[in-house]
Amino acid sequence: MFGKYLKNLKENGALIHNITNYVTVNDVANILLASGGSPIMTDYLPDALEIIEISNGLNLNIGTLNKRTVETMLETGKKANLLDKIIVLDAVGVGATKTRTNIAIELINNIKFDVIKGNISEIKTLAKNTSNTSGVDANINDELEKLEDKIKFIKLYAQKIKTIIVVTGKIDIITNGKEVYLVENGNSLMSSVTGTGCQLSALITAFMSANKEEKMLSTVGAVITMGVAGEIGYENMLDIDGNSTYRNRIIDAIFNMNEEIIDKREKVERYE
Amino acid sequence: MFGKYLKNLKENGALIHNITNYVTVNDVANILLASGGSPIMTDYLPDALEIIEISNGLNLNIGTLNKRTVETMLETGKKANLLDKIIVLDAVGVGATKTRTNIAIELINNIKFDVIKGNISEIKTLAKNTSNTSGVDANINDELEKLEDKIKFIKLYAQKIKTIIVVTGKIDIITNGKEVYLVENGNSLMSSVTGTGCQLSALITAFMSANKEEKMLSTVGAVITMGVAGEIGYENMLDIDGNSTYRNRIIDAIFNMNEEIIDKREKVERYE
Amino acid sequence: MFGKYLKNLKENGALIHNITNYVTVNDVANILLASGGSPIMTDYLPDALEIIEISNGLNLNIGTLNKRTVETMLETGKKANLLDKIIVLDAVGVGATKTRTNIAIELINNIKFDVIKGNISEIKTLAKNTSNTSGVDANINDELEKLEDKIKFIKLYAQKIKTIIVVTGKIDIITNGKEVYLVENGNSLMSSVTGTGCQLSALITAFMSANKEEKMLSTVGAVITMGVAGEIGYENMLDIDGNSTYRNRIIDAIFNMNEEIIDKREKVERYE
Repeated sequence: MFGKYLKNLKENGALIHNITNYVTVNDVANILLASGGSPIMTDYLPDALEIIEISNGLNLNIGTLNKRTVETMLETGKKANLLDKIIVLDAVGVGATKTRTNIAIELINNIKFDVIKGNISEIKTLAKNTSNTSGVDANINDELEKLEDKIKFIKLYAQKIKTIIVVTGKIDIITNGKEVYLVENGNSLMSSVTGTGCQLSALITAFMSANKEEKMLSTVGAVITMGVAGEIGYENMLDIDGNSTYRNRIIDAIFNMNEEIIDKREKVERYE
Repeated sequence: MFGKYLKNLKENGALIHNITNYVTVNDVANILLASGGSPIMTDYLPDALEIIEISNGLNLNIGTLNKRTVETMLETGKKANLLDKIIVLDAVGVGATKTRTNIAIELINNIKFDVIKGNISEIKTLAKNTSNTSGVDANINDELEKLEDKIKFIKLYAQKIKTIIVVTGKIDIITNGKEVYLVENGNSLMSSVTGTGCQLSALITAFMSANKEEKMLSTVGAVITMGVAGEIGYENMLDIDGNSTYRNRIIDAIFNMNEEIIDKREKVERYE
Repeated sequence: MFGKYLKNLKENGALIHNITNYVTVNDVANILLASGGSPIMTDYLPDALEIIEISNGLNLNIGTLNKRTVETMLETGKKANLLDKIIVLDAVGVGATKTRTNIAIELINNIKFDVIKGNISEIKTLAKNTSNTSGVDANINDELEKLEDKIKFIKLYAQKIKTIIVVTGKIDIITNGKEVYLVENGNSLMSSVTGTGCQLSALITAFMSANKEEKMLSTVGAVITMGVAGEIGYENMLDIDGNSTYRNRIIDAIFNMNEEIIDKREKVERYE
């Protein structure tokens, strides 16, 4: 059922502007190409303000940052909003430092994102620090160990900030504050490859840009697609292979993926 | 016939200073090593002004840029001219933004390049905006759909700026304003790998640096070599492989390539 | 005998903060993951000063640098000293430019490193320029062609600056000024892959961070492990493979390595 979102991307393409970290930027570019999207990277403000005009979506990732690139993220994001472009935030490392948390909050306060993605710890930190989410704070000190508690918490945050929230983990949770989808595709070895999270954010931006009328479902489609790629990539590994070859195999799997493969392998449940 | 230029590079080496984008920089380093060259990357002005003294060639690529790195490109390029080093410009994204176009023009107005490389759209934009190419402007609004129109246009631009122009496409066109060579090696899948263009610029710089007496023919040799690597890399792919593994296979093919392979596979024609 | 240091790292992990060059940063991240470590990269001063608090070790690499990142290296290194973190310096390119030499010396004068790594040329340059190593200068103009001359020279420098020195080459030399170990693992093809030296520095930082009570021996363990990975990676190569696939095979080998493999393959000799 969710394969059609990849099909649309492979058929119609999408130019994705990435302001992303220098650690995983090459893999982000190659996974966008594998999925039918086109990557463009620029963090120089005058250039970025022009590139966003011709792009379909904007992928912001704070994995590495500095004063200059944060300013570019802010101004390019604001312009992307004016131009009604798809915008995704990957909240890498939020909570690990106050610097990152504050920058993420500043971005969220100034830019209307279509999707914010993070792990449960990152999203909890954002919820705790977002000025207009006081109602969420009550849950902050909970451990959120149970799946239903996590879902309740994330859903409430999504409602407050009116943004699709993607929380990655053993079970990925995607919610727009009303609907909730759970995805169980993937392989635990994916965490041994740097940048699989960054790649997912890029895919979400591309999927949504090519399926603008179905933002929620295409986001779920991107999460499923990345998970299925992790499964197929793993199945294609030899005994001598390790995390570096796995990196290639995951991107290769996206390159060779089609609608039927996703429809057959998707492990997704509508929770609410 | 063109295999000897790779042979000279593999035998004699060439230290290539790259001021290039952070997206594809690792692949640029590895393809230089594969070809017999040695890569060095630095975009810090005081360091770059020293590195250029010990380098054989300078490869400038504007795929990602900022105020600081553009200044380094300008000053390092000027010094490279004084020292009579080989200098190549990869005009990535020229025409996509005014920012890039203006920066490329500023570089061209201040630095005498041995080669400028781009696709037809990028080269058209340069020709249109270069102050001393008014005679070229007449053709600018033409679609240049026919090969002979493209060739005529590029040749005129090469004459005007006295630089070898490499236009990549299904058929690659290389001209110094007098001679014109057409190369048909390559594989269409190369465009699904980020950075194959950046890699070609680096190869051109290295080939020319190791064959300084034959700038035109060694440039053609680099274009052929990259195309042949794309062909061999493609032949070596398995069903499970995609664009990420293809990236490795292309560089691997350069690593294993020799004079005989190029001489046997070259699809090159002297047009004029 | 040295396999246990990898075992400890794989079992206990270590969060390694890297301020490193943008050429090889992705491979550094993946080799840290392959070894059981966790990578984090940030060169933004406010962020870096927080990240070092939660990290076990700091890996500084001057392969690419600029004014901003050098300041971050200096201030983060000083804080790392106060917090008693493991700190490693990879002296990439020292001697190639005065800029790099001066920056490396400034780092060494302000930060107490646990390990400084380089090739013989880089370490000679450091020794010659370090203010408190006048006793070493006498040897500077020697060619140091003989192994015993190299060892004597490096040992003296290690004594003077009270730091473990790792000199890579056909035979790797590791000394803390008292003990000297020689390692002969590795494969000459490793120099055709960009970043194997950067990867070794990251591994040394991780090995030492996970074996803080045995700084000298765990450093030797890291050097052996990288060499063994180069051997296994080479054995796993096919005829069509080149330096790009070799890059993956080396990291894969670390991923699949264990105590027994190292103990069986280590080629190490206690020289003094």
